[in-house]
Amino acid sequence: MATHERPFGRCLEDFVVGDVLRHWPGKTITEADDHLFCLLTMNHHPLHIDERFAELATVHGRNVVVGNLVYSLVLGMSVPDVSGSAIANLEVNNLRHLYPTFHGDTIYAESTVLAVVPSRSKPDRGVVEVETRGYNQDGQEVVSFRRKVLVWRRDALPERPRPEPRDEASAT
Amino acid sequence: MATHERPFGRCLEDFVVGDVLRHWPGKTITEADDHLFCLLTMNHHPLHIDERFAELATVHGRNVVVGNLVYSLVLGMSVPDVSGSAIANLEVNNLRHLYPTFHGDTIYAESTVLAVVPSRSKPDRGVVEVETRGYNQDGQEVVSFRRKVLVWRRDALPERPRPEPRDEASAT
Repeated sequence: MATHERPFGRCLEDFVVGDVLRHWPGKTITEADDHLFCLLTMNHHPLHIDERFAELATVHGRNVVVGNLVYSLVLGMSVPDVSGSAIANLEVNNLRHLYPTFHGDTIYAESTVLAVVPSRSKPDRGVVEVETRGYNQDGQEVVSFRRKVLVWRRDALPERPRPEPRDEASAT
Repeated sequence: MATHERPFGRCLEDFVVGDVLRHWPGKTITEADDHLFCLLTMNHHPLHIDERFAELATVHGRNVVVGNLVYSLVLGMSVPDVSGSAIANLEVNNLRHLYPTFHGDTIYAESTVLAVVPSRSKPDRGVVEVETRGYNQDGQEVVSFRRKVLVWRRDALPERPRPEPRDEASAT
């Protein structure tokens, strides 16, 4: 028997330029998610929170999910494969909302490794650049962005703290 | 007596390069906001949602608010001054998380107009670029990003639909 650690993030050595990381699982964005996200982030654009406005005054005739929910969800989905054990998130570029997301659409994500650059000053780390894309259930690409992340080399990766088993005597 | 329309977004003519748009109000980011945002966006990084991990295994020794909540909040705060009547959001670049946000910090935002470019093909619109920054209660800049937005010229701006008063007879 063995103990299996769930992978969460990657070290510098685990990123290979050109590799595709297919994230899992996807998520359906509900109307409630969208409204909640908008209110939580003070984004009161009527395209997202006013059904009547969307019907009468927009191209699609219905509420479009706020772009930052789609972006943040896709980034969240990528964390276990990309940045779960990163030192820092450095920068996001080319964040583009390519196709609208509607209530009830389901979003999936994947990332391609664009660059792996070991640090010149600190031998225990390096910078990785990935392009992450979100798709809906029909395969339409809805969002894409490039992200630079500072990650550890494998031999510098800190261990994850886990709770120690309680001493049985002291638990009485 | 007059009817006053609350301003919400700007036309191309309302953006002047170099102008600063100071958004209002700010918002305190609570622990509940942060946890909710993380779960809503499937971002399970323990830096944000595991108090014990943050204490034992991170530089700050406490949970850091997830960057995309800070970014999305600051963007949301900018909507009434920047993109509330926009045609489309084109692209975000140079999104950087400059300083950590902790539970209980209060975030404010402002935007500087970087560029105003009338469309060459469509005379009713143009592209505006702004740099938006978020600050905490101590004036520390926590996030910044550049955003390109497609907006109407004033004479092409559609009217906002508002509900018509119900006919009294039909309301019985």
